[in-house]
Amino acid sequence: MTESPYFSVSATDGAARTGLIQTARGPIRTPAFMPVGTQATVKTMLPEHVAATGADILLGNTYHLMLRPGAERMARLGGLHNFMNWRRPILTDSGGFQVMSLAKLRKMTEEGVRFRSHIDGSEYMLTPERSIEIQGLLGSDIQMVLDECTPYPATYDQAESSMELSMRWALRSAEAFGAQADHALFGIVQGSTYEDLRRRSVDALTSIGFDGYAIGGLAVGEGQAKMFNVLDYTGPLLPQDKPRYLMGVGKPLDIVGAVRRGVDMFDCVLPTRSGRHGQAFTKHGPINLANARYAEDPRPLDAASDCPASRDYSRAYLHHLFKAREYLGPMLLTWHNLHFYQQMMADLRTAIAEQRVEAFAAAFEAEQRRGEAEPPEEGLIAEAAQP
Amino acid sequence: MTESPYFSVSATDGAARTGLIQTARGPIRTPAFMPVGTQATVKTMLPEHVAATGADILLGNTYHLMLRPGAERMARLGGLHNFMNWRRPILTDSGGFQVMSLAKLRKMTEEGVRFRSHIDGSEYMLTPERSIEIQGLLGSDIQMVLDECTPYPATYDQAESSMELSMRWALRSAEAFGAQADHALFGIVQGSTYEDLRRRSVDALTSIGFDGYAIGGLAVGEGQAKMFNVLDYTGPLLPQDKPRYLMGVGKPLDIVGAVRRGVDMFDCVLPTRSGRHGQAFTKHGPINLANARYAEDPRPLDAASDCPASRDYSRAYLHHLFKAREYLGPMLLTWHNLHFYQQMMADLRTAIAEQRVEAFAAAFEAEQRRGEAEPPEEGLIAEAAQP
Repeated sequence: MTESPYFSVSATDGAARTGLIQTARGPIRTPAFMPVGTQATVKTMLPEHVAATGADILLGNTYHLMLRPGAERMARLGGLHNFMNWRRPILTDSGGFQVMSLAKLRKMTEEGVRFRSHIDGSEYMLTPERSIEIQGLLGSDIQMVLDECTPYPATYDQAESSMELSMRWALRSAEAFGAQADHALFGIVQGSTYEDLRRRSVDALTSIGFDGYAIGGLAVGEGQAKMFNVLDYTGPLLPQDKPRYLMGVGKPLDIVGAVRRGVDMFDCVLPTRSGRHGQAFTKHGPINLANARYAEDPRPLDAASDCPASRDYSRAYLHHLFKAREYLGPMLLTWHNLHFYQQMMADLRTAIAEQRVEAFAAAFEAEQRRGEAEPPEEGLIAEAAQP
Repeated sequence: MTESPYFSVSATDGAARTGLIQTARGPIRTPAFMPVGTQATVKTMLPEHVAATGADILLGNTYHLMLRPGAERMARLGGLHNFMNWRRPILTDSGGFQVMSLAKLRKMTEEGVRFRSHIDGSEYMLTPERSIEIQGLLGSDIQMVLDECTPYPATYDQAESSMELSMRWALRSAEAFGAQADHALFGIVQGSTYEDLRRRSVDALTSIGFDGYAIGGLAVGEGQAKMFNVLDYTGPLLPQDKPRYLMGVGKPLDIVGAVRRGVDMFDCVLPTRSGRHGQAFTKHGPINLANARYAEDPRPLDAASDCPASRDYSRAYLHHLFKAREYLGPMLLTWHNLHFYQQMMADLRTAIAEQRVEAFAAAFEAEQRRGEAEPPEEGLIAEAAQP
């Protein structure tokens, strides 16, 4: 762990903050949204287009990459950045969350988790030390401690013993990581929806000292109100001078609400996964392009956008692509959704800098809840479609 | 049909020609390769990347488009160019070939073909007149007459009656098309592998008069030698001042051989379909990236290329993408293959202009047949992979 000016806050507005994380691979503007690049690719996207949406950093999944192509092979090929042709920072998770959701024949002990690959059944052991080793082999700029993501709901006793295990693993992760000038290690706060457990978790992590702090165990079914409640009391416990990362979140209004509560970093599969399934995020909420109402709708998703996917293709065309199961449908909608998310983050950063984040959030929410306007009437369609 | 300077030959070298076709949507450099955009998209490709590979024109399939989204709907949406965001010329086939290979419950009469959609079973009638009407609704720059692609092998009698039907349909197509300044209509020579039938077909078409002449009924299983033989005797029969289009061809060496025999235009699904299935065309012949030999091969497909897909990603990464069934694998390989084909066409045009097409063809064929070099040894791999 370093004590360098790793994170600098340039403005605050209530609990919300905007600033910069400095990495050896370049700066990350916060609040930041990290697109998910599970298998060394943000699905359907060219890396230059991911960067063009405004993403300063993306997330790689240690579980998937340790199985295929494998961490040692990746290191021989020059690391994850080189492998996937992405020159900006990468954050990797520890692999723990996906071991628990995807792997077969899991056996968890104090030492770590033994499991079999969901791809070919071969056996692996993931410990805090091995997770850090793998993340190092990948060349990850921001590495995460191995933890147990406490399921929801959990009794107090379950949440307590799970959190305590995660804190012992956090210490082992930090010891394995050691002191590195060019890479960062983040701790992860657990404790489910129990305030005193969250406080004890923060105390345990801050006494170790990390480059940043993630808030884990949320977005696992507890709902937005409970999630915001945890953020309300956990945020103030965390060091002001370190970035805060809310893992696996979320929908646009989740992100806006969490930024208002002081969160700096997010990752979520929603814009990419939704895009592959025909759902587009718009100013007026999500819409499904496979719906027949779009079959003759000549309007692009956002005529004023500087993203080609949002601007240059009609809803009728996107509808056709999804009906015809063409690759280009997921490609264009993922691109549009990632641009929508990055534009939202840019707007949040500006609103914080200009001390108007509450007004921005209220207006954004009102627009989102308004819903999509009906397509124009048929006479208008033919007219609007003229080149 | 117009008698404008639609096609101009700037150089010849033996039977090979290079020149320009002028369309209202811009020029087409010949010899030209047309990527196939079956369902209003070149599969896995953004239209701007198709253009960047050097494609001056692409091909749309009337059969697919008349079923979905439908010709009248496409017209209401501003035509095919507007719909798919492709501003350069488009050639459409007549729909006949794919009716015969894809549609259900086909019934062919003198009038046309009645069939049921392979998508939803609904009934359609395709006549020469309706095919021209549909191609007009799509806004196609180069339209094709409805014909019957004679199967191979065919007896003389079968080939004769099939060719004669196609010639009657060609006349009806030309009458339905009428005189159009901004669009072109091509006739299609049939006659299987029978020289006198090919001659009679050319006579029938030239007495009607078309903007260009396609050579149909080839690449249907007759093999390269028979195909070249048909080209050898059919080429000289065709008007020198009109473009010649060899439909559905082909492999790189097929195209080079056909250019040497005076063909100006080609279309084929090979670069796009192969790309989706892990096959890359290279200077030294096709390779399959799913092969384990590429798992740690740090070399790009072509380090000297100006195509990002060919230059910026290692074979090891492409191998990984195909193993992990990621969208980006088909996206990158299709892009690479289309660039390879367009580079081959550009090289052919230059070679013809410089009167060295035979030398170019001999060198190209020798390189293609040489096969791919082995990946470097393991020690070299780690070294080459350093960023």
